[in-house]
Amino acid sequence: MIIFYTEQIDGDKALLTGDEAGHCSRVLRKRVGDNITFIDGNGYFFESEITAIRKTECELEIIRKWEQDRKNYSLTIAISPVKNPARFEWFVEKAVETGVDVIIPVICERTEKMSIKDSRLQGIIIAASKQTLKAKFMSLQKVMTFKELINSIATEQAFIPHLNDKTEYLGKIIKPHSSYTVLIGPEGDFTDQEVKMAIQKGIIPASLGANRLRTETAGIIAGQIIGTINEINQ
Amino acid sequence: MIIFYTEQIDGDKALLTGDEAGHCSRVLRKRVGDNITFIDGNGYFFESEITAIRKTECELEIIRKWEQDRKNYSLTIAISPVKNPARFEWFVEKAVETGVDVIIPVICERTEKMSIKDSRLQGIIIAASKQTLKAKFMSLQKVMTFKELINSIATEQAFIPHLNDKTEYLGKIIKPHSSYTVLIGPEGDFTDQEVKMAIQKGIIPASLGANRLRTETAGIIAGQIIGTINEINQ
Repeated sequence: MIIFYTEQIDGDKALLTGDEAGHCSRVLRKRVGDNITFIDGNGYFFESEITAIRKTECELEIIRKWEQDRKNYSLTIAISPVKNPARFEWFVEKAVETGVDVIIPVICERTEKMSIKDSRLQGIIIAASKQTLKAKFMSLQKVMTFKELINSIATEQAFIPHLNDKTEYLGKIIKPHSSYTVLIGPEGDFTDQEVKMAIQKGIIPASLGANRLRTETAGIIAGQIIGTINEINQ
Repeated sequence: MIIFYTEQIDGDKALLTGDEAGHCSRVLRKRVGDNITFIDGNGYFFESEITAIRKTECELEIIRKWEQDRKNYSLTIAISPVKNPARFEWFVEKAVETGVDVIIPVICERTEKMSIKDSRLQGIIIAASKQTLKAKFMSLQKVMTFKELINSIATEQAFIPHLNDKTEYLGKIIKPHSSYTVLIGPEGDFTDQEVKMAIQKGIIPASLGANRLRTETAGIIAGQIIGTINEINQ
């Protein structure tokens, strides 16, 4: 199913513009009278009929609107940027696919890459959402420092997986049907000092299992462990 | 930790050749008398001392040998190749990281890409194993047809996730501490006929959860669901 995206909605009218309009009229050769489905990035699907096609826009009449089923938990991944931007882009795409709600890029002591390409990543979020039928876009927040992050955690539970044999497996210690933040460190892991500071703020040390994972993989696996525990406790 | 790889082991002597030798002597400027750790791709780590450096090889004396801890389950992912080779390469890398034991590329009815780049993928397996400390290499098998695959499954349990609202969540139906094969279909999913044939062979239909996943993501997520269930049942 091909899904379009627009936030330009007014009553029962909507407007595709830019790439979305070009994709609809020129690439897919849709015509007036054809039906298309679109999302608003805010949790809703719309079935609509094309009522006019102009050079740079397609006018739509909304036929039906429905909300996407919500998950029984919410998940924030606070993660260090990684040196290779393609790997961070991959992480963002897979985070959308696997149902992460919020990503917060975090600068840790051993982070080597201090920024992310926000507009490129927003494009990836839109494309991945359309492709995997997510009506609500994942929120990619502004870059924070580690201190700012641990002072602003708003979820019920928060975890800091790090390389340490003594921590318990994340899947064993989460409460189901809750809101979670998982902190994922840079290539060289969190410093002991960072782990200590996090623990003082009530963030729980955890293990992601026996596999040694790259930063971007750890972000996806942490999310999936939480997803699995919530699925089996439904 | 930097890990080398060689299978050229004879008693307490070993030999790095090719890229491994160049990486050791020229890139990292190791000298005679330095200690290095290597894997044999077969499950063992070795601590060794460099005893000679020649133009194209490094001679090693083994100091200590130890076996990597084994998982309490084994996992085969039988997966359709995907159109974009970079996505399949990504899948192979992440499969190594997350502890998949065997990959079988499978040609299904809707598969659009009939081959894989074996030698390139073997290189990725070696690099990912070294980086994530896997002493035993994941086995990448020869391409099979769907029929060959379902007639040759050797694990205790086998599952076929596909798009169908009525299937149960994979994490709810697996037995822990077992051997598993998970079949992952191509971009357009398995055909009804394929699902039927698989069920006749005792392969169990399953769901990977509410998220719609790309083929390569489904392969990793299926493995991780099985990993999580085995971890929490330890």
